[in-house]
Formats: sequence, structure tokens, C-alpha cells
Amino acid sequence: MLFVDVAAVVKLVEQIGIETVLAEMAGYIEEDFRRWEDFEKSPRLASHSDHGVIELMPTSDGREFTFKYVNGHPGNTADGLQTVVGFGVLANVRTGYPEMIAEMTLTTALRTAATSAMAARHLARDDAETMAIIGLGAQSEFQAHAFRAVLGVRRLRVFDIDPAATRKFMANMRGRGFDIVAAASAAEAVLGADIVTTVTADRARNHILSDNMVGAGVHLNAVGGDCPGKTELQSDILRRGEVFVEFTPQTRIEGEIQQLEPDFPVTELWQVVSGQAPGRRGAGQITVFDSVGFAIEDFSALRYLRDRIAVVGGATRLDMLAAPADPRDLFGLVGAEPAVERALAS
Amino acid sequence: MLFVDVAAVVKLVEQIGIETVLAEMAGYIEEDFRRWEDFEKSPRLASHSDHGVIELMPTSDGREFTFKYVNGHPGNTADGLQTVVGFGVLANVRTGYPEMIAEMTLTTALRTAATSAMAARHLARDDAETMAIIGLGAQSEFQAHAFRAVLGVRRLRVFDIDPAATRKFMANMRGRGFDIVAAASAAEAVLGADIVTTVTADRARNHILSDNMVGAGVHLNAVGGDCPGKTELQSDILRRGEVFVEFTPQTRIEGEIQQLEPDFPVTELWQVVSGQAPGRRGAGQITVFDSVGFAIEDFSALRYLRDRIAVVGGATRLDMLAAPADPRDLFGLVGAEPAVERALAS
Repeated sequence: MLFVDVAAVVKLVEQIGIETVLAEMAGYIEEDFRRWEDFEKSPRLASHSDHGVIELMPTSDGREFTFKYVNGHPGNTADGLQTVVGFGVLANVRTGYPEMIAEMTLTTALRTAATSAMAARHLARDDAETMAIIGLGAQSEFQAHAFRAVLGVRRLRVFDIDPAATRKFMANMRGRGFDIVAAASAAEAVLGADIVTTVTADRARNHILSDNMVGAGVHLNAVGGDCPGKTELQSDILRRGEVFVEFTPQTRIEGEIQQLEPDFPVTELWQVVSGQAPGRRGAGQITVFDSVGFAIEDFSALRYLRDRIAVVGGATRLDMLAAPADPRDLFGLVGAEPAVERALAS
Repeated sequence: MLFVDVAAVVKLVEQIGIETVLAEMAGYIEEDFRRWEDFEKSPRLASHSDHGVIELMPTSDGREFTFKYVNGHPGNTADGLQTVVGFGVLANVRTGYPEMIAEMTLTTALRTAATSAMAARHLARDDAETMAIIGLGAQSEFQAHAFRAVLGVRRLRVFDIDPAATRKFMANMRGRGFDIVAAASAAEAVLGADIVTTVTADRARNHILSDNMVGAGVHLNAVGGDCPGKTELQSDILRRGEVFVEFTPQTRIEGEIQQLEPDFPVTELWQVVSGQAPGRRGAGQITVFDSVGFAIEDFSALRYLRDRIAVVGGATRLDMLAAPADPRDLFGLVGAEPAVERALAS
């Protein structure tokens, strides 16, 4: 069983560059969105506690099965821990054997940004040059790089209510060729922006953007509202624009549209990617990608890691699967000295 | 994140002995069955294909969350692969961080046998001395050792339709202090047995045991019928005895009782273990443990591995969870040379 650890993902990014990784991963995600109907789509399996949630997100295209383990614990930051960590597994459907296990804390950050940028390629105006980013936490730099890699956006207007987050973002992005304005408010940040990314961390029903802040032709990339009780947009914005989602039943529970009536019309992004539904209908339209993250994006990311790391190296092997010489003689592994030596040496 | 690989489980068994492992693990399982109502019990999440099934089996007691990945691919043996392999994860509910990942091919064999023996301690006659085992595949030797470890049973009468399986079993069990008769048929094997364990591998509706083969006072440990379409017992046996199950909704789909009407009365084993229901009611009663395997047994097994391997050693550490110095600065891991070095060194 292959193991792609944190160091292997860091090494991949260092070797080929973060924007190459993001652009290539966006390609894998787009390819899987195009064949969306081939996938088995289950609701994520969630175990809730007072502290947070632990989720298993499985999917399969009939050839490969993947799942991601991921948590969400808003209080972790106070203890110096991350609110979200994860790992993923890719298995062979024909044999049922798991073939790869990979870190998915960094990889989830990469695939979330790659999905946003892929969606924006279908939904934002072709002449989009400037992106506002509201919320400068763990996801913000990944979003900036993904939008430059996929859409060529290099002008950023950014804001966070916490000046320390803004300082971290500005320091991380220094010397990377972006033209960045740190705004004094969200309202100032969105002025003149063609794309607005909201990616705040606060778990509450917030109005990061109010209706009067969003002008004609803007594409909203709403990433931060991703669980029940956590939204970022005033609901009027959703009604003025056309809303695109990943998997409707999940987004009605977790996304911005949880604020709206259960039959509020939405379009699934895969329909746009596969040419079955129009994306942006004109330069003046407001488009909203109400992103919550879906298992197929993790499937694509794991497929990408496997294929790419096979080329650049960095994976190791884990002694995870007992392999007796005779499959019916599992006991031989623990029962007799020679059998143990034989099996462990194989 | 701790990693308990195949070698670590083999080493544990070698260091303290397989029967100590089985008896101690049975103790952990019994402890968790006693507090059954503390657990979150979800149906297993199954992904079916023409080749087999891949399942995720999660549970939580509010302090720890575990899940097992396990497959079932009957055709694998023809390719020299095992029909069932697995691994498990134990996570901290307070932080959501996964703390241990462990092989669960060997460990599932151990926990299945330990659960059978624990059930039999409550359901078999106290004076049980002889066990028949029908089906001498991968699980058979584990069952034999578990019943000796937990109930003191050392006389075995065994049968398999495949002489090669019988030879493998007899060779593995040589010199281990059992008194073993290799019978010429299932009917001959069960003669005089106080406990009958059925653990055949064929995925079909079989009648390994017919009604006239099961005498008064016998405890049936029915392990092999564990998925839809796979049963081992003639249904009349189930009606003559009292049937004990792990988790009723799952057993009605996967166990021997899938042959019966959906309201056929059963008792959940945890009720017996916790003193809320009687087990065996008299020396002449037929008792049936219709075992299919449940997530709480894996929870107990993972808890046991963690605790025991902390003492005897053998676990390693995996670089699975990205750990930026500032939790909001995930990008620092890939974005800047000094940050990468700082984080990887920590």
C-alpha cells in the first residue's frame, strides 16, 4: 500500500510549483465533473459531537473507490491545532484492496482552491482581472494561486477582520508577482472586483457581503459557508444571481442556500462542465458558486496524487495488508515461525 | 499518528501468545458490549460492485471514534489474494484528530474469534468441553484458540469439504495441545459436540447443518453467514433455538435470520452481557449466536491494540497530519522555504 505523506505533497509542490499542481489538479477535477453520472454518490457519513464533526466521504466510479476522513473542530485553533485535518484512501474496486493512503490536509486545501478556479473558468467573465478575497485564513493563499493558475487573475483586493491574518497573508504572498491591495473593509475590498471569494472561518450566520456590495457581472466564489449554521452571504444576493452547486442535496444542508426555501432553483456545476446546462449567460449576470466540497473532488485529488507522485517520486510503502502465501492460511502469519518469516519477507 | 502495521500485530501475538491476546481482546469487547447504549451505531456504508463490496464501519462512544475499511471479494482467492483485507482508524472525538491507524486483516480475524468466544461464555453450557468446527478456512484456527482461551475448550471435531483445508488446519494446530478429530462429514463432526462453530466461506444459501444434526443443549456459533445471500443453517434450527445477534437491523440483512420473517424474535447479545436479558435458560436449550461482525467489535479491537502496543512496543509514527506552526498558516508549509523547514522539523 502506497503512502503519500505530508512531506511527499510538500515535495511535489516544491518540485513542479504550486500553480502547476493547482492547474493540473483542476484538470483532473474537471474531467471527473464531466463524467459525474458515472459516480456513486452517497451522503457523507457524519459523526457529530459537542466539539465538532468527523466525516467519512466515499465515492466510486466503478473502477476506483476513494474516501476521505476529515474533521471540523472550530475550537481547535485555541489549542494550537487545526480546525480541519484529513487523509484519504484510494482502493481498487475489482480486488477491494486499498492501494494508496495520502495526507489530505494540504491536499484538501489544494483541491478546494482548484475546484473554485475550475468553477470560475465556467462562470466568471472571460475578462475577469481582479479578485477580492474576504477572509485571509488557511485557504486564502491557495485560492489566490489557483485563480492565477487557471484564469490568469493577478490583481487581488483582500480583507480580514483580524489584522494578524492580513499580515500573514501579505507576508506569504510577498514577491510572488501579485498586485495586492489590503482593504480596510469588505466593502472596500469588493470595489471593482470581477470575482469575489468569501472564505471566512467564523461558524455563524454572517453577512460578509450584503446585497448592495455586489455589482452586475460579478462572480461570487462562496467557499466559507460549508456547514449547517455557517453562511456568509445575505440571502438577497443569492436571489439576484444564478446559483451553481456541487451536489444539490448536500448543498441545501451545508451551503449558502440553506438560508433559502428548499426548492430554490440551482444548477449543478457538472451540468455546466459537461455542456448540459449554460454557465454564465451574459456580462451583467451575477453568478454564485456555493461551494461546500464534495467527495468526487477528493477522488480527483487522490487520483492526481497517485499519478503525479508515480512520476516525481516521494511515496513510501506501508506494511498495512497481511499477505499470507496461501490466502486461506491467515493463521500461518502468527501461528508458526517459518510461515511468519516467509510472509514478512514477501 | 501512530501506525500499527502487520509486523506489530504479529509481534504482539508472538510476545504475549495468541490466547492471551484473544482473552484480553474478548475482555475489551465484553466491556464495550456492557456499555452498548453509549455508542453511536450507524449502518455500515457499503459500496457494491460486480466483484464484491467495500465497506466503511464507523462507531463512536463520544470519546473515541473508530472506523474500519474492509472489503469482501469472493473471487480474490483465485488470484492469490485474500477475500477480506482491512485497516482501522481510531480518532479523538474532542479534537477530531486521527490518532492511530492499524492493520485489520489479522486483527479482524482475532476480534471475530474473540467475539464468538465471549458470546459463548454467556450462551454455551458451563460444562462445554468439545467444539465442532465446520469450515477450516482463514478463521478456523483463531476460533479454536479463542474458545480454549476463554472457555477452556480443548477437544475439537473438525470438517471441511476441501481436504487441503483440513490438512492446512491439522498442520497449523499440530503440537498446540488440542485433542482434534478430523471427521469425514459435517454430520460426523457435530456428534457429541457441545458447541458447533460454522465458518464456511462459500457465498450461497447452504445447509451446512440440517435440523436433525443439532441436539439439545448445543450452542451454535454461526460465523460464516455474514452477508446477503450467504447462509449456513437450515432455518428450522433457528426456530428450535433462541437466536442472539449483535445489532438487529444489520443481522436481519446479513445474518442467518435473513432466511426468516422480519419480525422473528431475537435477543441482542449486549442485553445478555449487561444483565438486561437472560442468556442460556437451561441445559437442554439450543442457543444460536448469529454473528455477522459489528463496528463496536472493531472499536474494542482498536482500543485494545492501542493500549497493549503502548506497553509492548512495535508501533511507528506516520507523517500523516500537516502541522503548521500557526494553524491558520497552512500555506506556510508549501509557500516558503523557512516555514517548510520549521514545520517538518517539529
